[in-house]
Amino acid sequence: ILVPEAKPASNVFLGLQLFIAGLALKVWKFLQKAWDLGVDDPRKVIHCLKVGMALTVVSIFYYMRPLYEEVGGNAMWAIMTVVVVFENTVGATLSKSLNRVCGTCLAGFLAIGVHWIASQSGERFEPVIIGSSVFLLASAATFTRFIPSVKIRFDYGAMIFILTFSLVSVSGYRVDKLFDLAHQRLSTIIIGTALCIVVTMLVCPIWAGQELYALITRNMDKLADSLDGCVAEYFQDGDGSLVDSGKERQKKLRGYKCVLSSKATEETMANFARWEPAHGRFNFQHPWKQYIKIGASMRNCAYCIEALNGCISSENQAPEYIKKHISNSSLKVSSNSSSVIKELAVTIKTMKKSSDIHNLVKEMNSAVQELQADLNSFPKLFTSPSNSESQIPENKKIEPAASRTMVTLPPLMEIIPLVTSASLLTEIS
Amino acid sequence: ILVPEAKPASNVFLGLQLFIAGLALKVWKFLQKAWDLGVDDPRKVIHCLKVGMALTVVSIFYYMRPLYEEVGGNAMWAIMTVVVVFENTVGATLSKSLNRVCGTCLAGFLAIGVHWIASQSGERFEPVIIGSSVFLLASAATFTRFIPSVKIRFDYGAMIFILTFSLVSVSGYRVDKLFDLAHQRLSTIIIGTALCIVVTMLVCPIWAGQELYALITRNMDKLADSLDGCVAEYFQDGDGSLVDSGKERQKKLRGYKCVLSSKATEETMANFARWEPAHGRFNFQHPWKQYIKIGASMRNCAYCIEALNGCISSENQAPEYIKKHISNSSLKVSSNSSSVIKELAVTIKTMKKSSDIHNLVKEMNSAVQELQADLNSFPKLFTSPSNSESQIPENKKIEPAASRTMVTLPPLMEIIPLVTSASLLTEIS
Repeated sequence: ILVPEAKPASNVFLGLQLFIAGLALKVWKFLQKAWDLGVDDPRKVIHCLKVGMALTVVSIFYYMRPLYEEVGGNAMWAIMTVVVVFENTVGATLSKSLNRVCGTCLAGFLAIGVHWIASQSGERFEPVIIGSSVFLLASAATFTRFIPSVKIRFDYGAMIFILTFSLVSVSGYRVDKLFDLAHQRLSTIIIGTALCIVVTMLVCPIWAGQELYALITRNMDKLADSLDGCVAEYFQDGDGSLVDSGKERQKKLRGYKCVLSSKATEETMANFARWEPAHGRFNFQHPWKQYIKIGASMRNCAYCIEALNGCISSENQAPEYIKKHISNSSLKVSSNSSSVIKELAVTIKTMKKSSDIHNLVKEMNSAVQELQADLNSFPKLFTSPSNSESQIPENKKIEPAASRTMVTLPPLMEIIPLVTSASLLTEIS
Repeated sequence: ILVPEAKPASNVFLGLQLFIAGLALKVWKFLQKAWDLGVDDPRKVIHCLKVGMALTVVSIFYYMRPLYEEVGGNAMWAIMTVVVVFENTVGATLSKSLNRVCGTCLAGFLAIGVHWIASQSGERFEPVIIGSSVFLLASAATFTRFIPSVKIRFDYGAMIFILTFSLVSVSGYRVDKLFDLAHQRLSTIIIGTALCIVVTMLVCPIWAGQELYALITRNMDKLADSLDGCVAEYFQDGDGSLVDSGKERQKKLRGYKCVLSSKATEETMANFARWEPAHGRFNFQHPWKQYIKIGASMRNCAYCIEALNGCISSENQAPEYIKKHISNSSLKVSSNSSSVIKELAVTIKTMKKSSDIHNLVKEMNSAVQELQADLNSFPKLFTSPSNSESQIPENKKIEPAASRTMVTLPPLMEIIPLVTSASLLTEIS
């Protein structure tokens, strides 16, 4: 009879223990994930240290008496600028810095002008004029943020414009030394942005252009591997000779998924890359837009692989002898076209016109023709045995036919845009 | 002889005129684009007016003496909050507001704690302790911004955390009434966010959930139209009876491209929608993630249409009589499957389980089987004429075979995930 009385207390204790254990497990998992992330890409850790460093340096304005007396409480703006402007890549930091400085300048001058007009028009009208100017300019600037061409490059600048304009013009109603306020705000912001730019460019810089470039070449290699893997997978069922370690192969096969999902990253990177000065092998006027085009044609190619993959997992499979009939030429086409993609990746990597590329394209085209010849010989294959036999496999023949034409489609489709964009690139570099 | 002397002046004048005309043209074009944008979506204009209104209201803190005396120069934080937090959709505004308030609170308390510890440890160590705490916490918070789960929901909060922590702890070195500073900053931020939330929710609210929902149903309709249009286009060349106004049709055909490119929008919308309270027909726990799944399966379907489109534009076309043989059943499959998609769109629109959907799916499946039967009868078609004749068209037969299996593939592929996710949705609603 004592047991039930003792239970509630022990239950609560047990529950608490479980709760704490669960919480600890969650925290532990979170930390583990964070650790993996850091190990996976140490540059992220370096970026964090850079942010900490920049903030510590900028807070010296508070610790050193002579510096503090120069800028006063406005040193806060320098800190704020560092926090807001410091981004992972050089291009992003530069774009935000320039946007911030330009937006602040423009808005500051405008606000001082509006304030001067308002102060001339008497005490009663002052708040009305200031208020309506804030309303109008804020609405207009917000509207420009919807315009695509502004949104891509000057979104942050427009926001800073609204912010500075309303701050300066509204506080002008209370603060006497408005010009000093605007001047101090501008100078502290310039100090902050300058510090950010110096730190981001000198301490282990991460260039958006470099990242974009690495992403594109990596994706090209993945695409080539997937194409190879997919076709091999399709014909491998038949002979079973190509079996290698399962997980590794699955990873290769799924490589094209990265290509499908990297559109947004490519676009932001290309956008930031345009802000970057010349660095490494990239000139100032490097044709970043070409990379977006290459990305688009790679995505087209990945769609084809996706469709091909659908055929592999479809339950209707072609009979063995048909597969064997076309397997050689199909494998040749896929290996040729993937080697073309790889060669293109090398071309982009070295930024030199490859002498092999034309031969490879030629080889690929001849392989495609060979495959088509193989396909044309199909009817003979079916009509040569006795008629009664030939009609059974026919209904399953459609599947490989589909996959075959899909196999032949991607090279044809991908080569035309890829070669043109790649040749454009190589001509410039 | 006088003419050449007069030339430079007139040239300069002409050049200036041309320059001004060019500039005016550019400005005019820009304004026209902006006007079109406004006419296209009047809610964007309303949003701009809302921003202007909120800013004007918040600047009353400066104009009214009793209010100004309450918060002082810190009223600036309220203005800043409004500019930074006010977003287009309710969900985005709410998410930013909550992030800002929580980040400020947490950082403020931590900073006051650190400041207290530092002030106990003597004048020499104070800057060192504060500096190193800023360095450590800023680095750690920056690192959490890289962790995907944090990045999606609390990216802005982490930034505000760094900002507030460094501001409060560093200015604590100079400002005496640190507690007052933190308190005023927090209260002005709460005033700003509250104003934003009220304005965004009461004046013509734009709900992220509603937008996502409209996007998904619109994309479904577009997908169904594209599917119909593509298949019709493929077989239309043969009979030429389906020719309707070119541009309209082209637009329909390209509808699936929207589905391909809307991934990023869907994800951000779904993310913001989770922050929104119950509104309209959406409950608080509305399964927004299901919409992402639907979007993903729609994208799979769009890949198939993309591949099908490749067949249409391929130069190898099937002979007429083969096309005719399968055109009826293919058109049936495509119209059935597009009506299934449309029915699903209606289901989502009305949020009721449709009674027709099972019948439609059944119809579609039978149509698919019919098409397969038609395909199976192909060999007979080829073997019934004399052997010599049958071998010529064979090499072109592959193309329609490919397109056919692709036609049959999308419905099969799309139906399974679509039906499951739609039924999930309808069960909840």
